[in-house]
Amino acid sequence: MRFFSDNAARACPEALAAIAEADRLDTAYDGDAWSRRLDGAMSELFGTEVAALWIATGTAANSLALAALCPPHGAILCHRDAHIQVDECGAPEFYTHGAKLLLGDGAGAKLAPEAVGALAASIRDDVHQMQPAALSITNATEYGLVYTPEETAALGDLCRERGLGFHLDGARFANAVARLGCAPADLTWRAGIDVLSFGFVKNGGLSTECLVFFRPELAEATRYRRKRGGHLLSKGRYLAAQILAMLDNNVWLRNARAANAAATRLAEAAGADRLIHPVEANEIFIRVTPDEAAALRAKGFDFYDWGPGEARLVTSWDSDPAAVDALAAAIRAL
Amino acid sequence: MRFFSDNAARACPEALAAIAEADRLDTAYDGDAWSRRLDGAMSELFGTEVAALWIATGTAANSLALAALCPPHGAILCHRDAHIQVDECGAPEFYTHGAKLLLGDGAGAKLAPEAVGALAASIRDDVHQMQPAALSITNATEYGLVYTPEETAALGDLCRERGLGFHLDGARFANAVARLGCAPADLTWRAGIDVLSFGFVKNGGLSTECLVFFRPELAEATRYRRKRGGHLLSKGRYLAAQILAMLDNNVWLRNARAANAAATRLAEAAGADRLIHPVEANEIFIRVTPDEAAALRAKGFDFYDWGPGEARLVTSWDSDPAAVDALAAAIRAL
Amino acid sequence: MRFFSDNAARACPEALAAIAEADRLDTAYDGDAWSRRLDGAMSELFGTEVAALWIATGTAANSLALAALCPPHGAILCHRDAHIQVDECGAPEFYTHGAKLLLGDGAGAKLAPEAVGALAASIRDDVHQMQPAALSITNATEYGLVYTPEETAALGDLCRERGLGFHLDGARFANAVARLGCAPADLTWRAGIDVLSFGFVKNGGLSTECLVFFRPELAEATRYRRKRGGHLLSKGRYLAAQILAMLDNNVWLRNARAANAAATRLAEAAGADRLIHPVEANEIFIRVTPDEAAALRAKGFDFYDWGPGEARLVTSWDSDPAAVDALAAAIRAL
Amino acid sequence: MRFFSDNAARACPEALAAIAEADRLDTAYDGDAWSRRLDGAMSELFGTEVAALWIATGTAANSLALAALCPPHGAILCHRDAHIQVDECGAPEFYTHGAKLLLGDGAGAKLAPEAVGALAASIRDDVHQMQPAALSITNATEYGLVYTPEETAALGDLCRERGLGFHLDGARFANAVARLGCAPADLTWRAGIDVLSFGFVKNGGLSTECLVFFRPELAEATRYRRKRGGHLLSKGRYLAAQILAMLDNNVWLRNARAANAAATRLAEAAGADRLIHPVEANEIFIRVTPDEAAALRAKGFDFYDWGPGEARLVTSWDSDPAAVDALAAAIRAL
Repeated sequence: MRFFSDNAARACPEALAAIAEADRLDTAYDGDAWSRRLDGAMSELFGTEVAALWIATGTAANSLALAALCPPHGAILCHRDAHIQVDECGAPEFYTHGAKLLLGDGAGAKLAPEAVGALAASIRDDVHQMQPAALSITNATEYGLVYTPEETAALGDLCRERGLGFHLDGARFANAVARLGCAPADLTWRAGIDVLSFGFVKNGGLSTECLVFFRPELAEATRYRRKRGGHLLSKGRYLAAQILAMLDNNVWLRNARAANAAATRLAEAAGADRLIHPVEANEIFIRVTPDEAAALRAKGFDFYDWGPGEARLVTSWDSDPAAVDALAAAIRAL
Repeated sequence: MRFFSDNAARACPEALAAIAEADRLDTAYDGDAWSRRLDGAMSELFGTEVAALWIATGTAANSLALAALCPPHGAILCHRDAHIQVDECGAPEFYTHGAKLLLGDGAGAKLAPEAVGALAASIRDDVHQMQPAALSITNATEYGLVYTPEETAALGDLCRERGLGFHLDGARFANAVARLGCAPADLTWRAGIDVLSFGFVKNGGLSTECLVFFRPELAEATRYRRKRGGHLLSKGRYLAAQILAMLDNNVWLRNARAANAAATRLAEAAGADRLIHPVEANEIFIRVTPDEAAALRAKGFDFYDWGPGEARLVTSWDSDPAAVDALAAAIRAL
Repeated sequence: MRFFSDNAARACPEALAAIAEADRLDTAYDGDAWSRRLDGAMSELFGTEVAALWIATGTAANSLALAALCPPHGAILCHRDAHIQVDECGAPEFYTHGAKLLLGDGAGAKLAPEAVGALAASIRDDVHQMQPAALSITNATEYGLVYTPEETAALGDLCRERGLGFHLDGARFANAVARLGCAPADLTWRAGIDVLSFGFVKNGGLSTECLVFFRPELAEATRYRRKRGGHLLSKGRYLAAQILAMLDNNVWLRNARAANAAATRLAEAAGADRLIHPVEANEIFIRVTPDEAAALRAKGFDFYDWGPGEARLVTSWDSDPAAVDALAAAIRAL
Repeated sequence: MRFFSDNAARACPEALAAIAEADRLDTAYDGDAWSRRLDGAMSELFGTEVAALWIATGTAANSLALAALCPPHGAILCHRDAHIQVDECGAPEFYTHGAKLLLGDGAGAKLAPEAVGALAASIRDDVHQMQPAALSITNATEYGLVYTPEETAALGDLCRERGLGFHLDGARFANAVARLGCAPADLTWRAGIDVLSFGFVKNGGLSTECLVFFRPELAEATRYRRKRGGHLLSKGRYLAAQILAMLDNNVWLRNARAANAAATRLAEAAGADRLIHPVEANEIFIRVTPDEAAALRAKGFDFYDWGPGEARLVTSWDSDPAAVDALAAAIRAL
């Protein structure tokens, strides 16, 4: 019973069926019927005209987004614990050709406008320092919290004032939307987001994420950067088909709701004292002694030790209800 | 009846079955059971110890290979018509951080040792010029010719003498091996190749190629570069599984033989006068007048116009025999 | 008596005096009185508003200019023998982050509009190829020929039509202007040039060249790139002062005329049969047998062997008239 | 009476005389008599075989040094206030092709082994994080403190244990040596330093710094990177000559002692309460109220406001003793 990561989960049936359905002769790269439907499908979902590109990983999605917003001599504001800073082996630096990440603080990996403003203000306006060009946030955050539409919009206002591009790492965007019950637009373009890395893999996709440009003109150079990064798959239709299938009938939301619900059950079992962060998506961070961790593992539950006395549990679209109940019981029994 | 590109073909049943089989909870990235079997499977195939990494595209495979062999201030010798020069939007320059491609000539996109030697000798040994660091060839070539083991080894000797790394773009490596009936080792490490981009997608794979390092130590930094390039897929097991399934029972050779045989049928139909290049793999380049091209298209055959009066036909693992026969007849009837 | 290179020449008295004059306490970097006068001085010289930046080398000037005109995924059209291609160790690739140089042909290292048009037309308009973004020419060329204002303007028209930036490598711009007797404007912005690398070092400067932006807005990002390239000298005033001193009283033209005149004397001595290229600036390429070359060297003249049976002689602002006469006599005596 | 920066100072007479002396025809780039003497002169100074390259700026020196020690996917440990982090517009990122700077803390911009060890230990040993490859310290630091030989050696030991390259930003290396009265070797290779950016410009040079490689083999690729960065000046002899002249008769130490002595006089005038950092080189950071700062400026003294209630005063090799005395008196009078 593994609660390591939503990356380890299976692909959902709809994604697999879409791959089988796309297994026909069609134009290579992104000239096929599925890829050509992406812009339209995402424009409909977001209620505005967007450009949408499939892309194999979240790391590539984030890096291409940042390269579209920040020149090599610019700086990107983000949280100290952001995935782009601590888990991508410098992919943002690679794709931007050496931009610098400027690190801010905030509980639960969330950035408030004050923190972003202070970070931007710490840079002198001269050629000796890389000038802030973009802000990147993650929703849901690396610690499983969500930014509300209002919180996002406050950051978006700040970006507009300062001329910053605004990127949303949405590896768990579905979980945030599912949690908040808002329109996808409310967490994105209506709040000032320019580019979204829309995650599918953690949410039941097999091999694709989606880059969504709310300023479609930004996608133009990105098409070249995607090819140049070796990310223009020959048989792109298998990626596009997964995305389309998961948008159909709101499979993406159904999957995210399932993961969130499982997390909520675990959070309730853990209780406020044990929880390190509020549980608002599908990640649970709890305080456990080494003995308690060992006890859980002895019962067959796998998870990450996050720090001394801390464990991370992650639920996913296909978390087995029985396993979740068993883990919830085991936590209560600690 | 499309003869555009082997990139447009379907995935073979074994690849699809492997994906279904891999659809279980397992460790993320390349820590899963399938990914961990790759080194062994490829070492067995090549009869020597290798390091093998799945990678989503041939462009990424080539670029990572070149980055392992050439510093940013070095030069890569290749044919003027090489895929890395004309079809990858500068991915080699991106991954090597700005190495220069030095272009040589030779019929059918093949390089002879004399051409490579002359190209290397054209560079002065001083800091004002980027010094040759690697040679890259394609087998089968972009025009469907093959390098024999002896031809490859002659280039390998030259690389050893000059201290050049030696890369093989094997987008159609299977077609070359199938044609020559030799051991995979004969076209690679026994002939001096350091790194192979082993193509699977054009040969029936769904979404993966394989980088094979015959000097396994070169793979170490490449693992970081792969992550940094956004190419470490979260659910890598779906890629590894395709490769393993296509190695099993020599599916890769079976597929390539089918494509080659279809091409041979078309070549025989075209005849020597019409063929621009010998047909040694699965690409056929023929002379056709605009009227002839239109006549073929009127019968439902699709293909690329390659240049004025030239057409490219590509067969694939799943070329429909009836369609091939029909096209052969149509060509004979011109 | 060395005729190796104008790079080996001394600094002219005005440049040295300017350095002594600038040896006062002043603001660091480019905030000093001299640096702040550059824009104005160059705007006056060219008769239009320009932005001008001192820069220590021609290689850096060229590379910064190209980085201002071409994105990392773009291509730069230039002559096969251009300095940016064969003598800068990939600095353009470094500063542009991996743009590709596309090489054209033409006698004497000159490009005609037809050659440039054919080169641009060889690139397919799709994401698999790096799209042409800029044209770079050298005036006077690497073989000592000049582009006239009309020839430059014809290329400028082509750039405008195709949306290409237009860069002029003017390492020997002074020699070209001196030869043609035209206004500096005629060879630059009036002919469509966007950025000029204005050479001073070969023409009697000690340690500075000047980047001149005829579209001043292009200089903004370049100021960051200059710093980022480690080219914002702490005591920039010593560089700015040299440029200003060489503009004063047209010292730059006086120097270039002296070099050109010395070259003309050598060209007359060589005669049409021996000259490989017309001599229009300060470089002379002549046919010499190995015995003839040895005979000249025996008399104390140093120069480069350029190829088999070819020698390159370069005159400079301070070529000693007696040495020039002696060499002319020695050539006549061959 | 300007106490802004040692970058704003004049060039010392020996540097100017060396330029005049080098004003002869000689081989271009670094083939001249002066450049060829650099390795020997620096080897003698340091008492070990080194490779030494002139370079126009400290930013370029630092960046080339780091590029020699750290791959693009590696990380460089340095202080949060290091010049390479806050004042070079990302030149280290540019020259290393996107390495990441990991920031540590310590009073007075000094790093202790504990801080460095903790920083290195914060990085997981997996491909998702950029692995530490080098440590860079500054001596004298950005706040005018010095590392002793023992302190440096303790860091050097840690670098050897962890396989880190060790870079010393010695923009004010002369000031540190002058202060400590030790051998230059004691602060460098004997303490584990691999590469030194040896500063001359702040210490009376006109336009050159010197890169000193204590592992001479590291210089080989650096020669290409220097050219590629546009830093191989055509008339390099003017740079080499300055360095040689400042080594002769220990001019470099004489200059540094003068600057240090002036700083000491100001520090004594300020007194312990007003000093923010100990004054161990030529920078003085003092607490001043806005009124006090205004009072000093009213008397004709110029300096930087460093933060709220803080001022930075910098002395230089040519600080006028009368001006220093006047400023000391003015500070006492506050």
